[in-house]
Amino acid sequence: MTTGFFGNIQKIKYEGPASTNPLAYRHYNPDEIVLGKRMEDHLRFAIAYWHTFVWPGTDPFGGNTFERPWFDNTMAAAKLKADVAFEFFQLLGTPYYCFHDADVRPEGANFAENTRNLEEIVDYFAQKQAETGVKLLWGTANLFSHRRYMSGAATNPDPDVFAFAAATVKTCIDATKKLGGENYVLWGGREGYETLLNTNLRQEMDQMGRFLTMVVDYKHRIGFKGTILIEPKPQEPSKHQYDYDVATVYGFLKKYGLENEVKVNIEQGHAILAGHTFEHELALANALGIFGSIDMNRNDYQSGWDTDQFPNNVPEMALAYYQVLDGGGFTTGGTNFDAKLRRQSLDPEDLLIGHIGGMDCCARGLKAAAKMIEDKALSGPLDARYAGWHNTEARKMLDGGYTLEEVESWVRETNVNPQPKSGKQELLENIVNRYV
Amino acid sequence: MTTGFFGNIQKIKYEGPASTNPLAYRHYNPDEIVLGKRMEDHLRFAIAYWHTFVWPGTDPFGGNTFERPWFDNTMAAAKLKADVAFEFFQLLGTPYYCFHDADVRPEGANFAENTRNLEEIVDYFAQKQAETGVKLLWGTANLFSHRRYMSGAATNPDPDVFAFAAATVKTCIDATKKLGGENYVLWGGREGYETLLNTNLRQEMDQMGRFLTMVVDYKHRIGFKGTILIEPKPQEPSKHQYDYDVATVYGFLKKYGLENEVKVNIEQGHAILAGHTFEHELALANALGIFGSIDMNRNDYQSGWDTDQFPNNVPEMALAYYQVLDGGGFTTGGTNFDAKLRRQSLDPEDLLIGHIGGMDCCARGLKAAAKMIEDKALSGPLDARYAGWHNTEARKMLDGGYTLEEVESWVRETNVNPQPKSGKQELLENIVNRYV
Amino acid sequence: MTTGFFGNIQKIKYEGPASTNPLAYRHYNPDEIVLGKRMEDHLRFAIAYWHTFVWPGTDPFGGNTFERPWFDNTMAAAKLKADVAFEFFQLLGTPYYCFHDADVRPEGANFAENTRNLEEIVDYFAQKQAETGVKLLWGTANLFSHRRYMSGAATNPDPDVFAFAAATVKTCIDATKKLGGENYVLWGGREGYETLLNTNLRQEMDQMGRFLTMVVDYKHRIGFKGTILIEPKPQEPSKHQYDYDVATVYGFLKKYGLENEVKVNIEQGHAILAGHTFEHELALANALGIFGSIDMNRNDYQSGWDTDQFPNNVPEMALAYYQVLDGGGFTTGGTNFDAKLRRQSLDPEDLLIGHIGGMDCCARGLKAAAKMIEDKALSGPLDARYAGWHNTEARKMLDGGYTLEEVESWVRETNVNPQPKSGKQELLENIVNRYV
Amino acid sequence: MTTGFFGNIQKIKYEGPASTNPLAYRHYNPDEIVLGKRMEDHLRFAIAYWHTFVWPGTDPFGGNTFERPWFDNTMAAAKLKADVAFEFFQLLGTPYYCFHDADVRPEGANFAENTRNLEEIVDYFAQKQAETGVKLLWGTANLFSHRRYMSGAATNPDPDVFAFAAATVKTCIDATKKLGGENYVLWGGREGYETLLNTNLRQEMDQMGRFLTMVVDYKHRIGFKGTILIEPKPQEPSKHQYDYDVATVYGFLKKYGLENEVKVNIEQGHAILAGHTFEHELALANALGIFGSIDMNRNDYQSGWDTDQFPNNVPEMALAYYQVLDGGGFTTGGTNFDAKLRRQSLDPEDLLIGHIGGMDCCARGLKAAAKMIEDKALSGPLDARYAGWHNTEARKMLDGGYTLEEVESWVRETNVNPQPKSGKQELLENIVNRYV
Repeated sequence: MTTGFFGNIQKIKYEGPASTNPLAYRHYNPDEIVLGKRMEDHLRFAIAYWHTFVWPGTDPFGGNTFERPWFDNTMAAAKLKADVAFEFFQLLGTPYYCFHDADVRPEGANFAENTRNLEEIVDYFAQKQAETGVKLLWGTANLFSHRRYMSGAATNPDPDVFAFAAATVKTCIDATKKLGGENYVLWGGREGYETLLNTNLRQEMDQMGRFLTMVVDYKHRIGFKGTILIEPKPQEPSKHQYDYDVATVYGFLKKYGLENEVKVNIEQGHAILAGHTFEHELALANALGIFGSIDMNRNDYQSGWDTDQFPNNVPEMALAYYQVLDGGGFTTGGTNFDAKLRRQSLDPEDLLIGHIGGMDCCARGLKAAAKMIEDKALSGPLDARYAGWHNTEARKMLDGGYTLEEVESWVRETNVNPQPKSGKQELLENIVNRYV
Repeated sequence: MTTGFFGNIQKIKYEGPASTNPLAYRHYNPDEIVLGKRMEDHLRFAIAYWHTFVWPGTDPFGGNTFERPWFDNTMAAAKLKADVAFEFFQLLGTPYYCFHDADVRPEGANFAENTRNLEEIVDYFAQKQAETGVKLLWGTANLFSHRRYMSGAATNPDPDVFAFAAATVKTCIDATKKLGGENYVLWGGREGYETLLNTNLRQEMDQMGRFLTMVVDYKHRIGFKGTILIEPKPQEPSKHQYDYDVATVYGFLKKYGLENEVKVNIEQGHAILAGHTFEHELALANALGIFGSIDMNRNDYQSGWDTDQFPNNVPEMALAYYQVLDGGGFTTGGTNFDAKLRRQSLDPEDLLIGHIGGMDCCARGLKAAAKMIEDKALSGPLDARYAGWHNTEARKMLDGGYTLEEVESWVRETNVNPQPKSGKQELLENIVNRYV
Repeated sequence: MTTGFFGNIQKIKYEGPASTNPLAYRHYNPDEIVLGKRMEDHLRFAIAYWHTFVWPGTDPFGGNTFERPWFDNTMAAAKLKADVAFEFFQLLGTPYYCFHDADVRPEGANFAENTRNLEEIVDYFAQKQAETGVKLLWGTANLFSHRRYMSGAATNPDPDVFAFAAATVKTCIDATKKLGGENYVLWGGREGYETLLNTNLRQEMDQMGRFLTMVVDYKHRIGFKGTILIEPKPQEPSKHQYDYDVATVYGFLKKYGLENEVKVNIEQGHAILAGHTFEHELALANALGIFGSIDMNRNDYQSGWDTDQFPNNVPEMALAYYQVLDGGGFTTGGTNFDAKLRRQSLDPEDLLIGHIGGMDCCARGLKAAAKMIEDKALSGPLDARYAGWHNTEARKMLDGGYTLEEVESWVRETNVNPQPKSGKQELLENIVNRYV
Repeated sequence: MTTGFFGNIQKIKYEGPASTNPLAYRHYNPDEIVLGKRMEDHLRFAIAYWHTFVWPGTDPFGGNTFERPWFDNTMAAAKLKADVAFEFFQLLGTPYYCFHDADVRPEGANFAENTRNLEEIVDYFAQKQAETGVKLLWGTANLFSHRRYMSGAATNPDPDVFAFAAATVKTCIDATKKLGGENYVLWGGREGYETLLNTNLRQEMDQMGRFLTMVVDYKHRIGFKGTILIEPKPQEPSKHQYDYDVATVYGFLKKYGLENEVKVNIEQGHAILAGHTFEHELALANALGIFGSIDMNRNDYQSGWDTDQFPNNVPEMALAYYQVLDGGGFTTGGTNFDAKLRRQSLDPEDLLIGHIGGMDCCARGLKAAAKMIEDKALSGPLDARYAGWHNTEARKMLDGGYTLEEVESWVRETNVNPQPKSGKQELLENIVNRYV
């Protein structure tokens, strides 16, 4: 007994690269072993509730294009939406999903009603999870859409908004814990400013530090085992957002002593908007020890806003998964599709097709990355390039064994005259192209 | 007895706003008192040796356009250049200058020769400083132009390059100390990467941390009282530079425990290239306690590279000086013009005209900012906006006096329902326009 | 008898630069004579109905922040909105307004109902215009918000949408003519594509050419004396829009033989998004003979989407009005404020404050530009720079009097060896700063 | 007897996809038949003399990194460079090359000496072409590097510079003709402006129109059969360049009546800098009937300047070649590698490796595109999407058979109510991913 929303489409199957069936996987084969682990366990795909089931196709210049039977602010509609969602998860065979509170429950008149609505739908989800085996990758609170948050949530000039937001996060962590969520995410879309003219930067940073500290303390107190994740984004909706990029989040965590408590959920599109490649943000998070999870999507390189498209460029994705694997792969994190259909893609099957294409590209990227790891295609040349630093004297210099004046004496007296060596970038790029 | 390079141009004088003399100040009046201090002592102008006396007008598609008599790699040419430079400082009446080692000395065959050349020219500068009263705002080492640095200086895969760079910095700090320099700057134009494919991010960050630590230790050991400054820039020449922006530098300093030792030298053009306004970077450095000095210039908003133009937009500059003053003004820092003539501006007088225009705009910006400070034009509304946080309970919440669950109980039980208040951005923008 | 929406705010008056009254003009003085003409007749201010009375404060991540009593899809609400709008025009004393059909009438069930609704509101406007003396600068059709236009209006793959759009434009031209509108604008927000994969570029360009030709023919047939204007924008909402910038529109007009029939309405924010300065687009339209009107606003230089802020940077605006005046000033065009409040600016008075600030900046810009014109501050040096082209031989060469080989002979035989002359950019920038 | 520059590297051979030899082709197989034509005849590869043999590895912050034995301004060095170049062409097996005059001859003291030098080297090239079978794809004049061109060549305020540039172009067309070049290219790196303040836009456009007209007339007069090509670029080195993008060039050609005489040479990196995809520029040139040739390279999406990297993203390149094939493929044009090594890639073999990687990617892109063409993978759905326009009435409407009011009557009377159809973007993206 289904909702019928997807007509008679059957569970999507792996049919191999030769298939031209648009409703089949050509590369994603959950049980295939990659680097000693099932592909499904590597990728840990999750579906984003908001884009897939909530977004009506609006953009800044146009209204709804999608017309879904569950577009209504009632509990019945919320449950119909959940029914369709879990059907969708099963059709795709994706193991995880993610949601904001506002995605899943009707908006209530006040905090108490919101909480009751959330609790009711959480019970409904719990039952569906039990029935289907689908799991929650992460939960989060929507602290940006309602007008009360227009000037920030944790960073609002009004302490009542801070309190309202904190209370809301508590209910969302409770929901996440109840549903066995493996992470809890904070994205600060309104934690930033529109103009410095009305903004006290130091005050707002301290508010944000306190907010996050309260969240971390609560997590420990209630025994929530998931990871707390911050999702960096440089701007949009705000002119400037405090969680600009991975490097900025790291500085913030250090400032408030939270660098061992909180990790990052990195989105391709957000990386691009911050002027970075996706793989840069991933590599940096690895280097700083704060890598957590990813929001897989794609931002148009020529559009200056968050386009949240389904990923489709395999060579780029291979470099992203290379960083994920190079850092040891996901632990509690996974691959959430923070991607939405183009607003002209009206058909129910388009929802499936978008995800199938994205998943297939992820699978190709993962396999290419795994092969590069196995072959030491990149790590071999990399180790060779830095080999000089394994020399005893170099090591000692790096470890603090020499003063500046000692180094200077050595350079002067022995006439150190380093000769540049080719960086071999084109060769390495060609090597990558053997794999993708 | 002068070099004659500037013909019969006389010392630039303040003639007031009505003047149409292109070789007079209309707004910069060094002795005028602003917020209880001489304008000169607020602005602390410095001339950048490299753009003004070294750059030959090349760009990536064209060769030299400037033809200066001192363009030669000899000590005699270096001294002629110094003669012209100090004439220039006196014509403008600017109190400070800044230089890289490579700007002022002939390039030698090896480290020892470079050092000897530098020492010779430092003696020459010391004498000129004594004669003219001109002072050194900061010194720095050019660790990016020579091909030995093509793959980085502190972050080079070859430890010999690290050593060569460290030795060079020692000589430059020595030179800076000898000349009474008030700061020492590190700009890491090659501390970054061209491709992640050949880059070990963690290793390179550790190298950079060690390098900076050695510099700080040396400074203390020799009793150099100046401030160590890092100059952030996101990219160019590298595809990615590690000192991306103020937030990134802060995280780096925290990681290596240097946040109380090192401050930032913020450049307008670098802020723009990183996707920030200049005032954002200044405000953030203030909020993080690491503001040091500024490189005043202007980047074309529509060009994606470092255009280093003379500043000319007074409203924007007023907002920048507002942040400087709001943070207490410069201590060891100042206003260095990291600005160069357009390569078509061939005439010697263009060098003066460019600086005069920039200095006048700075003076206008400073005076506007000072008046806003005096009138509490922005700080008044700002304090009012955050007044709620002075309430006892709000204060307690911010200071860690409540848990997440306590806040939630309060919100639920008292039905907290915050109502948004106008952010008044347009009003504040109009207020600023009363001053500029 | 007023709606009471603006409380007891009285008509905004000119109080002079010293005023600190936020609800007074400091620079806009309608009757002041500038270059022999009243300031009001130079600037020809118009209020944009959509931003000021229709936009509810949404953004891609948040819902309504504004709560206006007329936010309802009924004729009564549309009339209340009109009442408030005309009160607003009178409070500000702005002579013109602009609207899309969808801004002013309830959305009907079909074309016929839309038309009836529009006709009813047009009658209501006509009466209000007669009562108040406020005039219509331009009308336009909203061919982008409704889902029927999601894949384009004139450029839709479905000819029925083309027809629906054409029919709608007819009704809007009729409305504009009836209300004495001085121009009719076409902005093609959906005339473009999301992906080339499903786009036939040549076909869509031909559709757009036909559409515009039909509009021009109709205009002449009914004796509408206003100017037909295209408003360029490079992208957003579409990934690529066909009316990318002024140069692109010119090529399009030439292709379809419409370059003498259609002019451009240039928006500051759209210029910025296309990688140009506003003054570039204005200067180019002048040079190509297609300048029509302007949408005055400001785009954040660091945000990659259309921010439509009120203009506030006088130096930039002076350069824009310099181009307008240099081209002879507006004829049927004017200064429409395509600017909206920040969504946090909730108060009714904010609507007035935003416009007052913008108008004052325009007035300052206009006066500075006029003074530069009078003084030949820029045109004098410009004429001198190109003086060589007035020589007989140079003129002949430019007019086609010499072949390439004749020029080559002359260069070779007389050893032509041109010497570069300073472009004096910094001097000219300083000169501009005397005026702003 | 070779120069020995490339050591004992032998002619690069096709070894198939399984090869891991960095000095072999894995995909470029010149004789393989694609769509009925040899791969070599499709791709028509050309080597860019300037990047490969002239550029010394400088960037705006650093000097030479490459040390080539021919880096000297003498005729002997120019001939050594030519020897190495033709060895290089033979090692790669590329059929074409391209050059600027300044790349190949020593810079002389005046026009006459430049011309003599050019003629001498042209004779040398002619002999080498005869020996090797390598051909000239296009010649061009460097009208941007010398300081005489700092303010423009054709658009210089000084008519003597116009004349000097015109004379130079004559000599370069003569050289191109003599060497059997199949095209002649004009890239206007200095045809633009740094500031509007000193620029007469209309005058400069007229100069550029005259210049191009003289070139076209000359071509016909001397019977040069090649195609005249303009290469669009939006900016860099100039702040604004007149040949901004394909659409702008089209408008310019139309204005001066040259749209049937001149075509475009489109560069990937220039497209990106103009805010377009490469395939957009190609598709637009096809739609406008002015497609000529391509400069294949890749611009870093996150760097705001011209990075001229070797292409390596096959999915993107497949979409580019799809447009080339869709327009009928190259006639006189070809695939010129306007790509340079990263400045850290010091080794002679890096020159080969960079090109091998680029050529292999082109081959993969071409083959994928060809297969999509054969399968009608994209054209099938495209035709279906626009099928409505084949209906008689729709056709008539498009051809001008109906007035606006007739269309309006029809819409009103028959209650036309178009229903949107899915654009199927994700499906089409997935289909492309079957081929790449």
